[in-house]
Amino acid sequence: MNLSATMITRVVLMMCLFLTAFSMQPVQAQQQQQKQQATWIWYPGDYEIWLANQMQNRRTERGTFFPPFWRMDNHYVLVDFHKVFDLKQPEEVEIFTEGQYNVKIDSKMINGTPKKVTIPAGKHKLNIKIYNQAHVPALYVKGNTIVSDSSWKVTYEDKEWIDASGMVSDQSGTEWLQAGFWNFTNPQIPPSQFRLPTKPMQAAKIDRKPQSLVVDFGKETFGFVKLHGLKGTGKVSLYYGESLEEAMSPETTETLDHLDINQPQAKDLVLEGSRAFRYVNIQYEPGITIADVSMLYEYLPVAERGTFRCNDEQMNKIWDVSAYTMELTTREFFIDGIKRDRWIWSGDAYQSYLMNYYLAFDSPSVTRTLLALRGKDPVTSHINTIMDYTFYWFMGIYDYYLYTGDKTFIQQFYPRMQSLIEFSLDRRNKDGLMEGLAGDWVFIDWADGLSKQGEVSFEQLLLARSLETMALSAEIAGDQQGAARYNKLAAEMKKKLFDIYWSDEKQALVHSRVEGKQTDNVTRYSNMFAIFFDYFTEKQKQAVKQNVLLNDKVQKITTPYMRFYELEALCAMGEQDYVLKEMKDYWGGMLDLGATSFWEKYDPNEKGAEHYAMYGREFGKSLSHAWGASPIYLLGKYYLGVKPLSAGYNTYEVVPVLGGLKWMEGTVPTPNGDIKVYCSTNQIKVKADEGTGTLRFKSKSKPKVKGAKIISKGNNEYEMTIEKGKEYVVSYKS
Amino acid sequence: MNLSATMITRVVLMMCLFLTAFSMQPVQAQQQQQKQQATWIWYPGDYEIWLANQMQNRRTERGTFFPPFWRMDNHYVLVDFHKVFDLKQPEEVEIFTEGQYNVKIDSKMINGTPKKVTIPAGKHKLNIKIYNQAHVPALYVKGNTIVSDSSWKVTYEDKEWIDASGMVSDQSGTEWLQAGFWNFTNPQIPPSQFRLPTKPMQAAKIDRKPQSLVVDFGKETFGFVKLHGLKGTGKVSLYYGESLEEAMSPETTETLDHLDINQPQAKDLVLEGSRAFRYVNIQYEPGITIADVSMLYEYLPVAERGTFRCNDEQMNKIWDVSAYTMELTTREFFIDGIKRDRWIWSGDAYQSYLMNYYLAFDSPSVTRTLLALRGKDPVTSHINTIMDYTFYWFMGIYDYYLYTGDKTFIQQFYPRMQSLIEFSLDRRNKDGLMEGLAGDWVFIDWADGLSKQGEVSFEQLLLARSLETMALSAEIAGDQQGAARYNKLAAEMKKKLFDIYWSDEKQALVHSRVEGKQTDNVTRYSNMFAIFFDYFTEKQKQAVKQNVLLNDKVQKITTPYMRFYELEALCAMGEQDYVLKEMKDYWGGMLDLGATSFWEKYDPNEKGAEHYAMYGREFGKSLSHAWGASPIYLLGKYYLGVKPLSAGYNTYEVVPVLGGLKWMEGTVPTPNGDIKVYCSTNQIKVKADEGTGTLRFKSKSKPKVKGAKIISKGNNEYEMTIEKGKEYVVSYKS
Repeated sequence: MNLSATMITRVVLMMCLFLTAFSMQPVQAQQQQQKQQATWIWYPGDYEIWLANQMQNRRTERGTFFPPFWRMDNHYVLVDFHKVFDLKQPEEVEIFTEGQYNVKIDSKMINGTPKKVTIPAGKHKLNIKIYNQAHVPALYVKGNTIVSDSSWKVTYEDKEWIDASGMVSDQSGTEWLQAGFWNFTNPQIPPSQFRLPTKPMQAAKIDRKPQSLVVDFGKETFGFVKLHGLKGTGKVSLYYGESLEEAMSPETTETLDHLDINQPQAKDLVLEGSRAFRYVNIQYEPGITIADVSMLYEYLPVAERGTFRCNDEQMNKIWDVSAYTMELTTREFFIDGIKRDRWIWSGDAYQSYLMNYYLAFDSPSVTRTLLALRGKDPVTSHINTIMDYTFYWFMGIYDYYLYTGDKTFIQQFYPRMQSLIEFSLDRRNKDGLMEGLAGDWVFIDWADGLSKQGEVSFEQLLLARSLETMALSAEIAGDQQGAARYNKLAAEMKKKLFDIYWSDEKQALVHSRVEGKQTDNVTRYSNMFAIFFDYFTEKQKQAVKQNVLLNDKVQKITTPYMRFYELEALCAMGEQDYVLKEMKDYWGGMLDLGATSFWEKYDPNEKGAEHYAMYGREFGKSLSHAWGASPIYLLGKYYLGVKPLSAGYNTYEVVPVLGGLKWMEGTVPTPNGDIKVYCSTNQIKVKADEGTGTLRFKSKSKPKVKGAKIISKGNNEYEMTIEKGKEYVVSYKS
Repeated sequence: MNLSATMITRVVLMMCLFLTAFSMQPVQAQQQQQKQQATWIWYPGDYEIWLANQMQNRRTERGTFFPPFWRMDNHYVLVDFHKVFDLKQPEEVEIFTEGQYNVKIDSKMINGTPKKVTIPAGKHKLNIKIYNQAHVPALYVKGNTIVSDSSWKVTYEDKEWIDASGMVSDQSGTEWLQAGFWNFTNPQIPPSQFRLPTKPMQAAKIDRKPQSLVVDFGKETFGFVKLHGLKGTGKVSLYYGESLEEAMSPETTETLDHLDINQPQAKDLVLEGSRAFRYVNIQYEPGITIADVSMLYEYLPVAERGTFRCNDEQMNKIWDVSAYTMELTTREFFIDGIKRDRWIWSGDAYQSYLMNYYLAFDSPSVTRTLLALRGKDPVTSHINTIMDYTFYWFMGIYDYYLYTGDKTFIQQFYPRMQSLIEFSLDRRNKDGLMEGLAGDWVFIDWADGLSKQGEVSFEQLLLARSLETMALSAEIAGDQQGAARYNKLAAEMKKKLFDIYWSDEKQALVHSRVEGKQTDNVTRYSNMFAIFFDYFTEKQKQAVKQNVLLNDKVQKITTPYMRFYELEALCAMGEQDYVLKEMKDYWGGMLDLGATSFWEKYDPNEKGAEHYAMYGREFGKSLSHAWGASPIYLLGKYYLGVKPLSAGYNTYEVVPVLGGLKWMEGTVPTPNGDIKVYCSTNQIKVKADEGTGTLRFKSKSKPKVKGAKIISKGNNEYEMTIEKGKEYVVSYKS
């Protein structure tokens, strides 16, 4: 069996369909491209904020506009871009902008609004200043060697007092950042015109009745319904359903469209609003005829670089449906679900980041989402108004650095990290603990009767982790003083966590403290996070595993959101066998009910259409929710067993655990390549494109490998170094 | 002589011309109107920021876009408005918005996007939430009794978690402000469509030559040139001149327009960009014919309530030309000058506020300008990047409160005052002094060789005054702790000012300290401000008057900007005779040179077209500059002698000083009326519509009056109480 032959490279080919206006390429290709190809640039973070406003304000509920309830920020309207060039010969460049602009060479204004300028030979500075109130000021410059890219500097406050004689009196004190960009390489299509691409999709089945069509697209999907050969005069209503029941309930369906048609000639009509649905119930008045119905599927064109296959077909299906759920919810940004909110929720996005590292490894989707969530200073409330969601934002940066090794992002946005952490620290109570103040939402999870009173241990734990992120980021940003301070604060916070919440009697962290007293209540949340944060001693860990994780008397978790962490904690404790069964039960249970994408919540005790209800509404539940896709993460990190040990997979480990499977194989993407792993009960194969890895495994007999040295660690444990570019085949006995 | 007959009420009638789209009325009428008439409302300060961006980015220099070099802020894109109504009967209201919106009654969303809703009888809450990226979200609601006005509350962060079943889970922690408004009462014309009104004006003289027209409008003016009967194919160029020399210098004129005309049928063309000019030199190619030229004069329609007349015709002319200069520079905001920057400069605006209190008393122009200058948090640089200009902003609030008594403005914007003062305090050096840091512009004045090194006394003085403003504002905003802190800081700062800068040898404040040492240099700036801030002892004051103000060896002031304060300080010392001569020399000097509005700078030693040069450019100087209009302020405050003693003219004083005139008379506007004063060498007449005044004057013989009691203060000084609504005629001997 040859590794490269057996690896199934499940690369979705959608990329190829979208090469005209916006070519989107994996991050490593993009990084090369920066040096050669002109791209639209802007003040970093501003386009993300602008686009997130566009996107999050597209939510409707039964036809009513339903915007977010937190502050939405805005771009800088006046921005200066510059770069210094050293040219061997004069060079003419073309200038395209989104906004009104002027041009300076060596700080001297060029007359008028030139579309082309010539930079003389030698060392010269080119400045372009753009004003745009409605859209993000954006620049595209193209010459023979001069191109606009992220190497340009940008500021919103140039502090340059310049008169027409060319005198510059003061440019000190101006903070310049690297320009932001995505991959908009067509000068004719400015960033504000960006739309995700679409492709036509046919219905699987159309049920035609008098004055009604019930269309089934065969699976959960997202995009714009197209009515073919629409003709006549009268009303047309579309009721969308993630389930057939929802589509057939015009009074309670979550999304709908009402149209007034007056069209004597038959014409195709594409609906304006994007919707999530599998079914569409179209009702129309007698004066109307509709020849056919199809849709335009809207998607973010990224390759799914991660793969997973094993001997268990149900698990393969779970992986595939998880991947499709991620595909649906990975859009302009990582959103919660495609039907209802379509907002960027920090807690939901945090899980998408982690899943993304084992699927598309699309770093721009991570940074776009982080920037949109963060918005601008001043910080006046928690992210999404939720205390925990502020902390997930920091944790997202911790992981982002670990998986990608990208220091520039942290260097550029360290000031926004500082202001957010200081906002949080300022909200600690007199005992230095996080406690919900007016306007703070302490969320944790959707769970019956979950107490948010007093000081909840979960929030202190997340703050500690956030402070660790700040310490790491301060180092990267060159703020030594900050690093020391945040390290100290993190250590204090961890100490407090155990001083205040650890119960010797219960051998677990309790849920909360109310009026200065430890409560009796033990919940899973802080206990499971403390496991994979590695905050417990080995003894505490084992105690928590028995007293909390595997204890049915402790309130059960019913959301895939928190199942994500519960199962991760169990995997981190080596319970892959147990977790595999749980996955087959829980995600397998959804598949048995016909799920084509994974849900916001699943309770095996519910029956029929009960599954679709949530928030007191008959079809309130989202049936395609990012946090439902966690098997991607669990299978990649804890079964294939691949995870970075230092930033950007410079070092990493591979610890394959079959967890009851006979064999498994898969690909885990890294910044500039892949790690491929095959594991059966007697053979492990591994090959990596970059970094230095450590393969760890157990074997009942002495393992064998060509071209490497296996080190015995005692207790049937072995270890082996993986060098990049080499393929290893290890024989062992599980 | 009857008072009402002799008073010349110089009320410009332009108001009447502008009643269709935007009716602008004096502040007291506007305040009444709030209760009855629907008006467009928005998040307070946001429209001002948006409009200031529009306006300040209209600057061009010889056809090139020339934007500001400081950060321009932006509006909140998603805003929620609400008001609670208690209705006797159900009421239908119409809803107009600028932006996408939804409507809630009692926190329950109404389906769709209703243009009309009915509020039931009883107590109910109406919420309207609006999203607009390009323009400021704005609302207009009109019912029988329900109207949108400043009594509505507004927030950018509702923190309201509401689902479609109508459940509101949390609205605490949301900060609601009173809605902002101007006077846009037409629901069909949303705020983004606002333009200042225009009226047609004819040329005084047109000099027609082959392929050229030189048009003289008879005086400095502002607006849009109109070419009548324009016909043909070819280029047309317009060179604008505040002077004839400038218009006739196509290579160096500051503003110009180039047009490409292709118009077979004769048609009128109004130029797109507004320009400042008296002369326009129009050059066109042979294929073009132009029948006639006129212009549309653009203006802010406010009444000039303040008046001044005296026996000296030159002084009357100075007052009139000052008033016209103010009219030209009082636009959407108080701007510096109409030709060049057309930006909102805090130091320039500060003088406009003061002049405005003696001319139009248009409070909305003051608050619009203050809000536009302040922008949003976070503060990242001084206002206009200039340290002194930050402090003038605070001083502007001090005076605004004193003259208008408006507490709401301070209560609403106290947080923005806090963040700006804290920014400044954070920039003090280790000795607690303001010193220019990277990016700070220490301006003070345009003066040759003026040192900005080390710590300049002038900046410490302005900081002290700003801290006094903060203490006062903290009281008004109910922040007792803040009031105590700012009072303490102000006292410390004043003590430092004298400890560090007062020179016993020179009997004056020195200019600066460099490397910890008092410099030898004495300048006028801090000395003259300390006089009218009343920071000196009487002894110090007299010493400073002799050693600095009246000392020709101390560097002279050449800008009308600082002449403003120099002459104010002299007036405050009772030197009205001297100041009158100075005014006749300096402003009279400009009139003698044909000025029809007052200039940015005037040096009597210059000749001919030398007067038009500045900043190293042949026509760089602005010939219509707000800070040139200071006689309005000086004549109203120090000759008619009217000034408030407590907020909003609740108490005030009238101290007429002829300063060498034979007689003078005039009107000083107050929040809800006027104070009219006549004074000759033997008679004083005074009448006030509100407040309680004190008339103070000197008389060589015992004065007489009917209906009041004159109290002798000794030393030929007398005092009398002025009750509102009564007219007093005092006989005295000057």
